[in-house]
Amino acid sequence: MAETDTSSAPSHPLIESDHVEGTAVFDAEGQRVGTIKRLVIEKITGQVVYAVTAFGGFLGAGSETHTIPWEQLTYDTRLHGYHTTITVEQLRRAPEFSRGDEALLSGHERQQLSDYYLYMAAP
Amino acid sequence: MAETDTSSAPSHPLIESDHVEGTAVFDAEGQRVGTIKRLVIEKITGQVVYAVTAFGGFLGAGSETHTIPWEQLTYDTRLHGYHTTITVEQLRRAPEFSRGDEALLSGHERQQLSDYYLYMAAP
Repeated sequence: MAETDTSSAPSHPLIESDHVEGTAVFDAEGQRVGTIKRLVIEKITGQVVYAVTAFGGFLGAGSETHTIPWEQLTYDTRLHGYHTTITVEQLRRAPEFSRGDEALLSGHERQQLSDYYLYMAAP
Repeated sequence: MAETDTSSAPSHPLIESDHVEGTAVFDAEGQRVGTIKRLVIEKITGQVVYAVTAFGGFLGAGSETHTIPWEQLTYDTRLHGYHTTITVEQLRRAPEFSRGDEALLSGHERQQLSDYYLYMAAP
């Protein structure tokens, strides 16, 4: 029989902006913990700066939305999704403005959020 | 009376992936010639590599969709849209695969398209 396991198929290196929603996010143990709702892009450079991500269930109170800096996400071509080492504890303590559906952060907020996850990720 | 001309308001430097559609594209003379349908993003780097853009009317045969390399688009914060120096003639002679709604180009096609517009833009 033909192999029908598409999970091992190589994923296309590109994605359309209108197909971003639903991309899976996995934690450090490889558990699927959420999905991307939208990416936020710098208009001038065309660089993604963060992802608004829905984390489901594991926070014990249904789904929560968090803004995750791009540098905290690493694409896994095998899993067709992003890995992150961010923990539940980090999400819970994240700056208030990043815990919600607000997508357009100020420059100051972006820096604050980036610093927060870089600092919390240190041993 | 309060100033209500929002066209001169500074635009936010960021845009959400689900709000990209409809962003205006202007030609070298500042004429609005089209709108972005979607951006296409490298999954690993998070960099936009091209824009699928609908050009309306000025080709004489209704709206046409073209894939435009990112480096051919420059954001104008005053106009809230992208400028391009690409001409009607260049669009007409563009590689067949870039003249349509096909969004996910191969690496070879991306290079070919980038080279085409860089070469055609030279004097």
